[in-house]
Amino acid sequence: MAWTSLALDLLGVFFFAVSGSLLAVRREFDIVGSLLLGTCVGLGGGILRDVIIDAGVPRAFDSPIYLVPPVVAAVVVYFFAHAVQRFHNLLLTFDAAGMALFSVTGTLVALAAGMNPTAAAILGVVTAVGGGVIRDVVANDVPQIFRARGLYAIPALIGAALTSLASWAGWFGVGTGTAIAAVVFALRMVSLRYR
Amino acid sequence: MAWTSLALDLLGVFFFAVSGSLLAVRREFDIVGSLLLGTCVGLGGGILRDVIIDAGVPRAFDSPIYLVPPVVAAVVVYFFAHAVQRFHNLLLTFDAAGMALFSVTGTLVALAAGMNPTAAAILGVVTAVGGGVIRDVVANDVPQIFRARGLYAIPALIGAALTSLASWAGWFGVGTGTAIAAVVFALRMVSLRYR
Amino acid sequence: MAWTSLALDLLGVFFFAVSGSLLAVRREFDIVGSLLLGTCVGLGGGILRDVIIDAGVPRAFDSPIYLVPPVVAAVVVYFFAHAVQRFHNLLLTFDAAGMALFSVTGTLVALAAGMNPTAAAILGVVTAVGGGVIRDVVANDVPQIFRARGLYAIPALIGAALTSLASWAGWFGVGTGTAIAAVVFALRMVSLRYR
Repeated sequence: MAWTSLALDLLGVFFFAVSGSLLAVRREFDIVGSLLLGTCVGLGGGILRDVIIDAGVPRAFDSPIYLVPPVVAAVVVYFFAHAVQRFHNLLLTFDAAGMALFSVTGTLVALAAGMNPTAAAILGVVTAVGGGVIRDVVANDVPQIFRARGLYAIPALIGAALTSLASWAGWFGVGTGTAIAAVVFALRMVSLRYR
Repeated sequence: MAWTSLALDLLGVFFFAVSGSLLAVRREFDIVGSLLLGTCVGLGGGILRDVIIDAGVPRAFDSPIYLVPPVVAAVVVYFFAHAVQRFHNLLLTFDAAGMALFSVTGTLVALAAGMNPTAAAILGVVTAVGGGVIRDVVANDVPQIFRARGLYAIPALIGAALTSLASWAGWFGVGTGTAIAAVVFALRMVSLRYR
Repeated sequence: MAWTSLALDLLGVFFFAVSGSLLAVRREFDIVGSLLLGTCVGLGGGILRDVIIDAGVPRAFDSPIYLVPPVVAAVVVYFFAHAVQRFHNLLLTFDAAGMALFSVTGTLVALAAGMNPTAAAILGVVTAVGGGVIRDVVANDVPQIFRARGLYAIPALIGAALTSLASWAGWFGVGTGTAIAAVVFALRMVSLRYR
């Protein structure tokens, strides 16, 4: 994966980790619990994808740099959480940002591992929603994806399918990837507001 | 896996997917949530088995045909759920049918991957109960297998052990497989009635 | 893995399985449910580790001897549970003992599979806490590790890091391993008392 894709992937890890750490703070976990939950949420979807692809050790275990975003997220949330007013909206925003990026990068990783375009898109969805499912199951909520306020699975599927299609057609680049993620994020956020 | 085994496996996916979609309707998920939960329940046990066997990409990701039964299940449940009176009994019946078929086909897949007969039988049980555990954890229930009304794990274990034994002895065929699944289903249903 | 490591690992499986079976009894599962939950808790962390390492079939499926400790645990708990007064404390003690042993043996297994020392320590933590997370998710509790009474993740991380360090330095042996596990167990138990 090129460094731009890596950067987008790490950004996705950070966004999901923030959503996990925010939930941890709301549930009154301590800083260690916040770091752990953020790590599980940030890395869970990608680990799930890599275990299914079955191409060796998940990248999160191979590349220690993947541990940096959750640490940063836990520290940032620890110091700023008291200043947050609209807690749930912030969590949903970070969750949407992570989901949007992972629908793109998750599909790219699956394609790079040699999966066919359809399977790669499905694995992109798994990556995009996996961390959030882990977060919600651990917190004893019904996962958002199953009972979404607004659209959730459909934007993730659109992002993964567009990424798979663009790669297949040879159109994929940093610009395309960022544009797809932006569309997915916008779809999710707009659907949250109007439903 | 011969086409008859594939047909039985797809039928098992359909039965479990119906149980997932039924639960989704009862929990008032929308059609997307129903499709997603049905897919997780129908494919979860087999994906778990294939990840443990570690023989490449799970068949559900390799063979797109595995996505057909969950779609059919979600559509059927969507149109007929309003007509269902005894909801929980119907869910338990479809769950039992899926469990019975998977205790046979799950064991066959594990044997075909070169597992020894004991490990194959245990993986057959994992396949047979995995989807239901995922369904119940997501829905915030204690999984049925741990707190079964009637027998649950024991019929699954009997089905997997008989399949493993029959294969080892060279007696396995479509007739034997169907008969074993029928016995497992009957055991489960009778135990539900008399306990 | 040498036979001493295997013995420590099986002891860890037994301790975790007891914690699972104790919870099963408290939730009024029957003996089958108790055996199943004990098995999931005892073997879950190691299976998770082996699936992530991606080095073939998890050892719990390859070596049938791993099924012995959960059976013994379920039987012992079945006959003695009625005599237990301070249920929750006993569960926490067995959980701490399993966690302490697995932080050592889980790291060793990961090192033996060729993981680098950092990744091996993280996988040691995954092994040490995985079974307990499965137990708590299945029982619809927030996993202890996220909302620990006393320290939980930190002792596990110390144990895994010391094991990784000692192996790297060539100091690891049965004595060292046992000493590290004892320190982890003591840390966890003392933190439970004073917080």
